[in-house]
Amino acid sequence: MSSTAGQVIRCKAAIAWEAGRPLSIEEVEVAPPQANEVRVKILFTSLCHTDVYFWEAKGQNPLFPRIYGHEAAGIVESVGEGVADLAPGDKVLPVFTGECKECAHCKSAESNMCSLLRINTDRGVMLSDGQSRFTAKGQPIYHFLGTSTFSEYSVMHVGSVAKINPSAPLDKVCVLSCGISTGLGATLNVAKPPKGSSVAVFGLGAVGLAAAEGARISGASRIIGVDVNTKRFEEAKKFGCTEFVNPKDHNKPVQEVIAEMTDGGVDRSVECTGNIDAMISAFECVHDGWGVAVLVGVPTKDAVFKTHPVNLLNERTLKGTFFGNYKPRSGLPSVVEKYMNKELEVEKFITHEVAFSDINKAFDYMLKGEGLRCIIRMEG
Amino acid sequence: MSSTAGQVIRCKAAIAWEAGRPLSIEEVEVAPPQANEVRVKILFTSLCHTDVYFWEAKGQNPLFPRIYGHEAAGIVESVGEGVADLAPGDKVLPVFTGECKECAHCKSAESNMCSLLRINTDRGVMLSDGQSRFTAKGQPIYHFLGTSTFSEYSVMHVGSVAKINPSAPLDKVCVLSCGISTGLGATLNVAKPPKGSSVAVFGLGAVGLAAAEGARISGASRIIGVDVNTKRFEEAKKFGCTEFVNPKDHNKPVQEVIAEMTDGGVDRSVECTGNIDAMISAFECVHDGWGVAVLVGVPTKDAVFKTHPVNLLNERTLKGTFFGNYKPRSGLPSVVEKYMNKELEVEKFITHEVAFSDINKAFDYMLKGEGLRCIIRMEG
Repeated sequence: MSSTAGQVIRCKAAIAWEAGRPLSIEEVEVAPPQANEVRVKILFTSLCHTDVYFWEAKGQNPLFPRIYGHEAAGIVESVGEGVADLAPGDKVLPVFTGECKECAHCKSAESNMCSLLRINTDRGVMLSDGQSRFTAKGQPIYHFLGTSTFSEYSVMHVGSVAKINPSAPLDKVCVLSCGISTGLGATLNVAKPPKGSSVAVFGLGAVGLAAAEGARISGASRIIGVDVNTKRFEEAKKFGCTEFVNPKDHNKPVQEVIAEMTDGGVDRSVECTGNIDAMISAFECVHDGWGVAVLVGVPTKDAVFKTHPVNLLNERTLKGTFFGNYKPRSGLPSVVEKYMNKELEVEKFITHEVAFSDINKAFDYMLKGEGLRCIIRMEG
Repeated sequence: MSSTAGQVIRCKAAIAWEAGRPLSIEEVEVAPPQANEVRVKILFTSLCHTDVYFWEAKGQNPLFPRIYGHEAAGIVESVGEGVADLAPGDKVLPVFTGECKECAHCKSAESNMCSLLRINTDRGVMLSDGQSRFTAKGQPIYHFLGTSTFSEYSVMHVGSVAKINPSAPLDKVCVLSCGISTGLGATLNVAKPPKGSSVAVFGLGAVGLAAAEGARISGASRIIGVDVNTKRFEEAKKFGCTEFVNPKDHNKPVQEVIAEMTDGGVDRSVECTGNIDAMISAFECVHDGWGVAVLVGVPTKDAVFKTHPVNLLNERTLKGTFFGNYKPRSGLPSVVEKYMNKELEVEKFITHEVAFSDINKAFDYMLKGEGLRCIIRMEG
């Protein structure tokens, strides 16, 4: 037992008091974990677009003050009643979604969309009692995605915490708990390109590059990166991209360009932008007879996917994925193993690193579109 | 060698001289098969909607005079040069599409959409020389779908002829060369419902009932038939349907009705109507996380499939199939085996039988919507 178990911990957290205003690092009180909860000491966290999107609060109900952060790695400090799978000292990755192991989704071999702990961007409190475990300046501070990793300590539902290899370097694997695994799993778990096949990846941000990395690991012989930003093409080569298409360079739909490059279409495509036109192109660019298109990017609320049904009848498959179809607790640790056995090259995704006190710099990098992932070190 | 090999055969055929006019049974001359062709003595044929659709010629370029027919069974009479896989006396099923065994589709484990012999409704002649092998009253008569089984003898490309078990009763298995295998394969080869799962089948004609039969064979525990014709429900029970939904009985979309019946959606759905709204319902009625929808029915040219992409991102899969994903030569014989070993109950599909001289009665049954399949006996 750690000496802090059962006690309120006072530590630093980066609080967002208002939408779009820089985070403020200050002292918070973190209550002990209740039943089926764990308290995690966060050692490294990184910034994902989803944090920025909800911090900007342009498209959804604002919920402030709040502690953001969901890509991270840490060590279990203490566990609440009924937690059998985790113990203090375990190395873990917090996950923005969960796995209760009891619901129909968790019991299905195919789904990772846990009924109890599925991503909920509106909820800012713990499931058990509807309360926050964070207090600052005498007021409760909302949680984010059940993780709130922009804090030295955070309380999470046990179902949202993946126990990983104790040898894993947390400053590297912290980036595996969201976007990278999402893109990687979209390819490895859903698109499943056969060795020697062709794969098109739409959108060359971190998620798309992880999808390309998955195609590289799968032994795809052609990996076609598609992006409207030509600057991304040079970096994408490191992730296995062999060819590039900028839709703006052509006066016909990009699916036709790709079909011409590939004698009828690619074997697999992975869509990582969320743009509805890109989704349709990603579907229509796969080969008839065997092509599989996988949608990853999250669209706007009003988006409508449209295609002629003959594109389907000609034996194309259209699938979507959430978190790369990884089950958070039972599947995510395998991604860490892929890094440990040198299949997956995580370092390529880490382009910046800042101290926790400089967390707002990480926001600046992302807002400027610089780099892929910025690691935030919680300790000096 | 049969005594007719290499000779023109004079026999009876049912010729469609004009769109929508009763077929006329008269003498035709059937030329010997050329290289990579076989001449088949048709013993039993049946009538499929596709014959009627092209005979009515309401939506496409008319091609007359023509010999329709593509669901059939027969015996090889003679083979042309280069035909190694078939010999006179072999029992065969002619198929409206083909398998050349050389193209990328034939070499793919997944596709059955042969580049050379894929269904072509516009072509009325043989591939090799662009000529017909049929002559009547001194003029060439067009072929249909490369099969033209409404003739006592017909010439086909070897790639469109499946050699089957020599013990198979041709008066039964003749119905397996088109619609029944299409529906059955949509379920068995594409939807693949796990044992104990729930399956919705849209459209309870012969193809849909074959899809239900596939679900029954797979051990599905709930098979929900969906049709706007309530009369079809009683018969559908024989094919395993356990429940029925008539969309006209509800004032909300049928996908919502099905989701309520099944705690969120069925595990699999198979769409066999070709109606675009039914296609969308069939997709949206499958469960998130693991649901798979399979489109079989052929839509109108202007149809647009529309859905919110979140329906896909929530881990639903949308696929289309052609001929139930059976490869004509290497896959279709397995359907005959399923009948031979009593897994597949073919007799249920055969509701009428007529002599060749009464072939127009088969058209009447279909136009009135009576029964499922009418067998046409070529010999008295």
